[in-house]
Amino acid sequence: MPGNGATRGPHTDIHRLSIDELGRAYRGRRLSPVEATETLLTRVDALDQTVESFVTVTADRALRAARRAEAAVAGGNDRGPLLGVPVVLKDLIDTAGVATTASSRVLAGRVPSVDATVWRRLRRAGMVLLGKVHTHEFAYGSATPPTRNPWNLAKLPGGSSGGSAAALAAAFSPAAVGTDTAGSIRIPSGLCGVVGLKPTSGLVSKAGVIPLSTTLDHVGPMARSPRDSGLLLEAMAGYDRQDPSSRRRRGRPAAPAVDPSITGWKVGFITNTGPMTPGVEAGTQAVLAALAEAGAKVDEVTIEDYDQAVDHDFTIIAVEAAHYHRPLLEAHRDLYTESVRSRIEDGFTITGTAYLDALEAMRRYRRRFDDALSDHDVLVAPGMPCPAPDAGADQVKIGGRREQTDRAMCRNTAVSNLTGLPALALPAGFEDGLPVGVQVIGPAFAESAVLAAGQAIWLRLGLPAVAPL
Amino acid sequence: MPGNGATRGPHTDIHRLSIDELGRAYRGRRLSPVEATETLLTRVDALDQTVESFVTVTADRALRAARRAEAAVAGGNDRGPLLGVPVVLKDLIDTAGVATTASSRVLAGRVPSVDATVWRRLRRAGMVLLGKVHTHEFAYGSATPPTRNPWNLAKLPGGSSGGSAAALAAAFSPAAVGTDTAGSIRIPSGLCGVVGLKPTSGLVSKAGVIPLSTTLDHVGPMARSPRDSGLLLEAMAGYDRQDPSSRRRRGRPAAPAVDPSITGWKVGFITNTGPMTPGVEAGTQAVLAALAEAGAKVDEVTIEDYDQAVDHDFTIIAVEAAHYHRPLLEAHRDLYTESVRSRIEDGFTITGTAYLDALEAMRRYRRRFDDALSDHDVLVAPGMPCPAPDAGADQVKIGGRREQTDRAMCRNTAVSNLTGLPALALPAGFEDGLPVGVQVIGPAFAESAVLAAGQAIWLRLGLPAVAPL
Repeated sequence: MPGNGATRGPHTDIHRLSIDELGRAYRGRRLSPVEATETLLTRVDALDQTVESFVTVTADRALRAARRAEAAVAGGNDRGPLLGVPVVLKDLIDTAGVATTASSRVLAGRVPSVDATVWRRLRRAGMVLLGKVHTHEFAYGSATPPTRNPWNLAKLPGGSSGGSAAALAAAFSPAAVGTDTAGSIRIPSGLCGVVGLKPTSGLVSKAGVIPLSTTLDHVGPMARSPRDSGLLLEAMAGYDRQDPSSRRRRGRPAAPAVDPSITGWKVGFITNTGPMTPGVEAGTQAVLAALAEAGAKVDEVTIEDYDQAVDHDFTIIAVEAAHYHRPLLEAHRDLYTESVRSRIEDGFTITGTAYLDALEAMRRYRRRFDDALSDHDVLVAPGMPCPAPDAGADQVKIGGRREQTDRAMCRNTAVSNLTGLPALALPAGFEDGLPVGVQVIGPAFAESAVLAAGQAIWLRLGLPAVAPL
Repeated sequence: MPGNGATRGPHTDIHRLSIDELGRAYRGRRLSPVEATETLLTRVDALDQTVESFVTVTADRALRAARRAEAAVAGGNDRGPLLGVPVVLKDLIDTAGVATTASSRVLAGRVPSVDATVWRRLRRAGMVLLGKVHTHEFAYGSATPPTRNPWNLAKLPGGSSGGSAAALAAAFSPAAVGTDTAGSIRIPSGLCGVVGLKPTSGLVSKAGVIPLSTTLDHVGPMARSPRDSGLLLEAMAGYDRQDPSSRRRRGRPAAPAVDPSITGWKVGFITNTGPMTPGVEAGTQAVLAALAEAGAKVDEVTIEDYDQAVDHDFTIIAVEAAHYHRPLLEAHRDLYTESVRSRIEDGFTITGTAYLDALEAMRRYRRRFDDALSDHDVLVAPGMPCPAPDAGADQVKIGGRREQTDRAMCRNTAVSNLTGLPALALPAGFEDGLPVGVQVIGPAFAESAVLAAGQAIWLRLGLPAVAPL
C-alpha cells in the first residue's frame, strides 16, 4: 500500500511523503523541515515549467519558515502534526506580504496586508508556504489555464482549484488549500487523482478569500489521502467572527485513523447521478466492494433531480459574481480574459426572481439529502462522470451523449454546494491512464465520518496519487 | 391627560378604555370582559359601515372567549394584563377557523386550520378576537381600500395595516396587530393618530403570516399608547422555531411604566429626513420639548441618505413579492386588483444584481444607525412627512415639492425595515384636524427603551387617540 511506509530511510522519495509521514520523519530526526522544503522547492523549480501550477513561489519565506519549524522540533516545541509541513494555497486566499491575484491580470501586483483566517490558522500550526497556485481566473470556471494535468499534459487538470490538485499530483506539495463553489475542490481532485474535501458550510472561515458566490463558496483541504485532509481540516476549522457565514459548533472534526473501522455503517449509493464512462462505473463498483469489505452495508438511494442541481448553482453564482465584480469590471474591463468577462456579464441579465428560485432550490435539495441521510451514515456518488477531457475541449461525450464540458464537470458536485453538506472527492481507479473518482457525502458537520469512510476506501484501493513526471 | 383615569365609573366610555384600564376595571369588578366585548361589537355594528375597517367580525367567537375570560377573572385564574382584552388582527395573520384572506379576492373563503404563532400567543394570554381587519391587498401598498380615516372620512387611513389603525382610532378595539414591510404599521398609526411599533427583526414570529417580503416583513403591536403597545409586545415576543428569521434572546421586552423616567437619557434628533409640512415640523418640535421636559438631553444627528432607503426597500419587496406570488398569479391572475397585480408583475423585471445591491444597502444603513446609536439611548425622527392625504390622491405636495404618494408615505419609515431596528410611531399633534406624528428608533432588541421614551412623550403631549365619530 502506498503512502504508509514508516520504515523508508531519509532522502528517499521525500516528495512522495504524506503529511503524516513527514511528521513522523521530523520527530524521528530522519528528516528536517528544511530538507523537505528544499527538496520540494527544487522539484518545483525543475518541473513546474511543465505543469504550470504555481503563480508565485515563495522560496525565501518557505526556507525561513522551515528553519523556524526545525528549531521548534529541535526545541521540543511541538505545535502538532502540521509543524514544518509544506503547503500551497490557491491564489484566491490572502497571504500578508505575498501577492494574491486570483490568477487575474485585474489583480496583478495586489499584495494583501492581512492573512486570510484559514492561512493564519495553518501558519500558526507551523505550516510552510511554498507558494500560491493557479485558479481559473477569479475561480470562475472548471478549467485552470495555464495549469496542465500531471497524469497527461494534454488533459484538463480541472478547476478552479486546478493548481492545488496538480501540485499535489505532481508531488510539489503534500498539502493544499482550495475553494469550491460548484465543485472547484472536487473536480480537480477527481481529475488529478488526489483527495479534496468541501466541508460543511460555515465550518471553515472564508474571511480573506476572494469571493465568487458568497452563498455557495466553501474553503477546504486538499491532500493525497483522506487522513491527511483530516489533519489539515483539524487546523482549518473553527468559528470566525470575520466571516458572517461562520457557524459556532461544539466539538471539532477529527482526522480519521490510518485504518478506521466502519464496520456496520450504513452507506447509501446514489444511483441517479446520470451517465458516466465505463471507467467511472468500474471505479464506483470498486469503491462499493471496498466498503463491503470494510464491513459497511451498502444500499441504493436516489436524490430527486440530482443532476439538475448544477443549473441552480450556476444561477446563484452568476448573480453573485456579477454583483461582486461590477466595480472591478467598471475599472478594469479589458484586463479580464474574454471568457470570464462574458460569463460575469451574463450574470447581469438574470432576474431577481430567478435568483430566489435558485435559493429556494437549495432548501429543497437539503431536505432531500437530510431524508436520505436520516437512515445512512454517509452517501456515496460518482465523482466526475468521465476522466479528464482534452484541455480546451468545449464538449465531452459521456454515455453516447454530448455535454458542455463545464456543466459536465459540475453536474455531480454542485448539489453539495446547494445543500452545504460535506463532500469528499477521492480516487477510485484509472481509465485510459487517467484517474477517476468517487464522492462521499455526509450529514452537516459530520466531516469525521465522511473522512473515515473515505480513508477506509482509500486504504483498500491502494491507488497511487502521484503522477509519473 | 387622556387614558389614565383610574377613577372613571363603569359603563362610561368603555370603548375609550386602554388595555391597562380594562384590566384594572376587570380586576376591580367594575366591568366584565363580556360587557366590554358586547359594547365594542355594538359600536362596530353601528359605525363600521362608515369606517369599513373590518373584513370579518367574529362576534360569536368573541363572546365565547369573553365568557371564558370572565370565568377566569372570577375564578382568580389571572393570565395577566391581556386577559379578556379585545383585539383585532390584520387579515394577513392566520386564525384557525376564521377566514384569512389578505383582503384579496384571490384568497376569498380561505380558512386556515392553524393559528399564526403571534395569535396563538395572544389567544393564550386570554385576548378576545373581535375580527379581522383590512389590509392593502396582500399588504402591497400604503393605502387600505376600502377603509376610511376616522378623523376625516375623505382622507387616506394609511396602510397596509390601515384596518388596524382605523379600528383603534374609531375605538372599535383597544388593541390591534399589524405588519410592517416599508412602514405598514407606522404609516397608518401616524395618519390615524395611534401608536404602532415595528419591533426588532426576529423578535416577533412571522410564522403563519402571509408574506410580502420575507426579508423586510415585521409583525408588531398597535394600540393607543406606548404602554399598551408594550403590554401587547410582552405577550407577542419570543423565539419561534417555525420562523427561520426568529432570534433567541436572553431577556424579554417590558412595557413601560405609566410615567417612566428618562432623565439623563441622550436622544438624537435625525435632522435630514427631507421636507415636511409645517404641522409635522411643529409636532416634532413639541416632542423635542417634551423630551427636554422629561429630563432627556437632545442633540442633532444625520443619517446619510436617510430618504433614499425607501428605494432599496421597494426593490427588495418587488423581487420577493413577485417570487412569492408567481404561483398565485398563474392560477388567479384576474382576481387581483389591477394596481397590485401590476406592481407584483413589475417585480419580475428587476435583476438579481439590483436585488443584491439593495440587500447590501441594508448592511450600510444598519452600520449608520449603529454608529448614531452608539452614543444615544434612542433616536427621534418625524413620522409621516404630512398629515393624511386625500384618499386616492396619486401625488402629495410637501414643502412645495410634488411627490408620489406611496413613496412619500414610506420615505420616513422604510429605513427601519432595512436596519431591522425597533421603530415606534406615536402622535405628536394635529394639522388641519388630522394627526401628525413622530418615530422613536432604538438599538436592536431595545424595545423597552423605545417604548419608555415614547410613553414619556405621549404622557406629556396628552393628545386624543380616538376620533370623534
